[in-house]
Amino acid sequence: MALTIEDMAIFCKKKGFIFPNSEIYGGIAGFFDYGPLGVELKNNIKQSWWKTFVQDRDDVVGIDGTTITHPKVWKASGHVDCFGDIMLECTKCKERFRGDHLIQDVLKIQADGLSKEDIDKLVIENKIHCTKCKSPLGPAHEFNLMFTTQVGPVVTEESKTYLRPETAQLIFADFKAVMDTSRQKLPFGIAQSGRAYRNEISPRDFLFRSREFEQMEIEFFIHPKETKCALLSKEDLDFEFQILTQDNQEKNQSHSKIKAKDMIKNKVAGEWHVYWLRQVYQWFIDMGIKKENLRLREHLKDELAHYSSACFDIEYQFPSGWKEIHGNANRGQFDLQQHEKVSKKSMAIFDEATQEKVIPRVIEPSQGTDRAFLAVMFDAYEDDKERGNIVLKLSPRLSPIKVAVLPLVNKLEDEAKRIYNLLKKEFTCIYDRSGSVGRRYARADEIGIPYCITVDFEGKDDKTVTIRYRDNTKQVRVKIDDLIDTINNMIKGKYL
Amino acid sequence: MALTIEDMAIFCKKKGFIFPNSEIYGGIAGFFDYGPLGVELKNNIKQSWWKTFVQDRDDVVGIDGTTITHPKVWKASGHVDCFGDIMLECTKCKERFRGDHLIQDVLKIQADGLSKEDIDKLVIENKIHCTKCKSPLGPAHEFNLMFTTQVGPVVTEESKTYLRPETAQLIFADFKAVMDTSRQKLPFGIAQSGRAYRNEISPRDFLFRSREFEQMEIEFFIHPKETKCALLSKEDLDFEFQILTQDNQEKNQSHSKIKAKDMIKNKVAGEWHVYWLRQVYQWFIDMGIKKENLRLREHLKDELAHYSSACFDIEYQFPSGWKEIHGNANRGQFDLQQHEKVSKKSMAIFDEATQEKVIPRVIEPSQGTDRAFLAVMFDAYEDDKERGNIVLKLSPRLSPIKVAVLPLVNKLEDEAKRIYNLLKKEFTCIYDRSGSVGRRYARADEIGIPYCITVDFEGKDDKTVTIRYRDNTKQVRVKIDDLIDTINNMIKGKYL
Repeated sequence: MALTIEDMAIFCKKKGFIFPNSEIYGGIAGFFDYGPLGVELKNNIKQSWWKTFVQDRDDVVGIDGTTITHPKVWKASGHVDCFGDIMLECTKCKERFRGDHLIQDVLKIQADGLSKEDIDKLVIENKIHCTKCKSPLGPAHEFNLMFTTQVGPVVTEESKTYLRPETAQLIFADFKAVMDTSRQKLPFGIAQSGRAYRNEISPRDFLFRSREFEQMEIEFFIHPKETKCALLSKEDLDFEFQILTQDNQEKNQSHSKIKAKDMIKNKVAGEWHVYWLRQVYQWFIDMGIKKENLRLREHLKDELAHYSSACFDIEYQFPSGWKEIHGNANRGQFDLQQHEKVSKKSMAIFDEATQEKVIPRVIEPSQGTDRAFLAVMFDAYEDDKERGNIVLKLSPRLSPIKVAVLPLVNKLEDEAKRIYNLLKKEFTCIYDRSGSVGRRYARADEIGIPYCITVDFEGKDDKTVTIRYRDNTKQVRVKIDDLIDTINNMIKGKYL
Repeated sequence: MALTIEDMAIFCKKKGFIFPNSEIYGGIAGFFDYGPLGVELKNNIKQSWWKTFVQDRDDVVGIDGTTITHPKVWKASGHVDCFGDIMLECTKCKERFRGDHLIQDVLKIQADGLSKEDIDKLVIENKIHCTKCKSPLGPAHEFNLMFTTQVGPVVTEESKTYLRPETAQLIFADFKAVMDTSRQKLPFGIAQSGRAYRNEISPRDFLFRSREFEQMEIEFFIHPKETKCALLSKEDLDFEFQILTQDNQEKNQSHSKIKAKDMIKNKVAGEWHVYWLRQVYQWFIDMGIKKENLRLREHLKDELAHYSSACFDIEYQFPSGWKEIHGNANRGQFDLQQHEKVSKKSMAIFDEATQEKVIPRVIEPSQGTDRAFLAVMFDAYEDDKERGNIVLKLSPRLSPIKVAVLPLVNKLEDEAKRIYNLLKKEFTCIYDRSGSVGRRYARADEIGIPYCITVDFEGKDDKTVTIRYRDNTKQVRVKIDDLIDTINNMIKGKYL
């Protein structure tokens, strides 16, 4: 039986990764709290992203903007006017449904992108009624997904505003401020990691469609006429993606394979777009995700958002099927032009190379943090029948706890604690003395601790301990003096 | 002239630390975005706190809860009923004022904790009018500081809710979930770092009283009868605080000094409370804050919040005077008892040591992240007349950028870039080739880069470079092979 999203939610709760928010009050749909292990794993994912895409690069800087912002930001971006889902309401019990979800659930057809008229027609033709009380449904209408709030005690034009539905717009709104104070030149990017909010009509699928979530987004600014990407290496160009093209989707085919250079040659995507898809794809692989579980999916023409001329998702193969975990859009000049129009402030910047004033075009690698978390968890989860326990094979770099120190017997506690104290300044560690060593190994496996250090009598004499590696249960005996270096090397990828 | 908070705001904007949010749309009062340098500094502060108080400890675990939560959380906590400020409204132009601030600004008296009646009386007696249009003010009334929002498309009892005004309550609401899934025993703590929101009537003083901010809070749970703290070391007990006691304040005296052990002996505070004050005080010192710029301030009896039996602030000596940067309250059993009452779920836990079921009491070290940021910035800021530039003497551990690599002349660029590439995987670095070396040192000083690596002709032959330390401009010549280790050691505190 394939592991479902519900199974994962139960596992995450049981092990302290994720709790439903406000559970003592019956919960609140679409809100989840990260528990002690979850917060560490999420932080490790976030820090890995920030290091890879901001700190290790010369051409990307970060910002951290507020989640409440001036309402004109959302007017300019188009979110006030067109950021809604189509909603159906029961004429009797007033239950509300997201139109496309209801159509999909009842008729088992693909319902993405259906218009109000399409949905009304399908509801009537197929006599779709309220799934709760069986009464007729009213006509379809739009529901804006932005949460609203009121800023300050006085009601003014600006006092009704929104919780940001994406981090991206903060980057565009701060674009001039960043340009004026950093010393960046085109092409360059601005990155942000933080919360976003969408008042989903029917939140579902655990972290997949929650109402409060985190994003990690980059807006990468390029000269509008620049089509060449000098950053593409030979290795990048030879990299082979799995891809579900528009053509594959139209012909109901499964995905195919394509090299980065052929994506460019066949005009599937531009050089810069391919470059960023390649970087993010690699980041997932570096986080330990199996390459065969990743693929690109090209958006269909009628699926593209109002601002986008081309978009690719990165999908992950969950046990229940392929789902989007990353979106990568070519936003062109849309956003900066909109903000220029509404704010009446010039968004043009002087390009040293061409001696022109230009409004850059934008490639946007947009990462849902919670979806990265889910992909990492699913990819790591293994029900090991032989061992009789779950083994969470997280990349050691991401593991919330790197090391468990276990005294073989209680007599060895002093020595084990000494080693624990030695290690815990360097690594996240736990000390575990209760139950058999086998039981303690299993407990460590289940929460993804890669290395168990066992302190035994043999080692007491020759100042050694054993390190057991979670994934294959192999053990090596190591000098205590070399322990920190050895574990550090193992975490860096030289496993046992 | 002392550096004002406005000067700091200007400096922070100019150097890319902090931007007013939505500035292209005229801004929105009380909201600030962290720019490229600000986000790195804030993240370093947050990571330092998390490592010190969560990862390095065995007895504290973290969580990361949502900012929107079930409204009953805020009913139970008392925030729905009593989390307001007293507001005055102009009868003509409808401008609104925070009562205590207006009294303080106009009458130059301390107005904390004044009641509605007190404020009405003072307004009438002193004929205080609207400061904007000079018309009379209406009667004082309460304004709840929580931002409200509506969750989901259907209006129900739970659909109107709040953005959290503090992170603390999420910890109490998740207390049982954490207890059930982690293996902690009393005494232990739960920590959280994240956003909080207060709809201030009149946001002021830059990051000091903003409407969206970050907190880092610990709720530390102790057996209700446990007064002894085994964690207090001899060094802790001998530590000398600066303190402004209740007595000092009543007699209008300046602060005095007191050893931790005497705070306990003289019953100024309990052992656990002293322990936590000591830990946080030390954290500030470890972040490089000068010890003489820190003091405790004991809350006056009539200043205490409804949940608190004793509270101390940690204050920082800003150029404009002492101000709160940390609050440390003894919350007793108030919160868990309230949540037990409202949720009807038991909050009692079994204590192994005493074999009793108890509701723990709580000490709460509550840290405003943005205020820590401000204190760090002010403490580091030095206008060096001799050098003719600002020197931002941030602790190297906190500096957003650790290293600048500077070729002495353009001819040395290849060599300098090689060194830059060597260092940048290890440290946040910039490469700077424009302008004289003196100008480049100044630029590095102003954004707090501790180490400038200069690549010169002498070093080209013997494979060395010079490292210049920001605070004293001293230079040492170091072998390139030893560069990473040397810088690492310097960052760890072995400066030049």
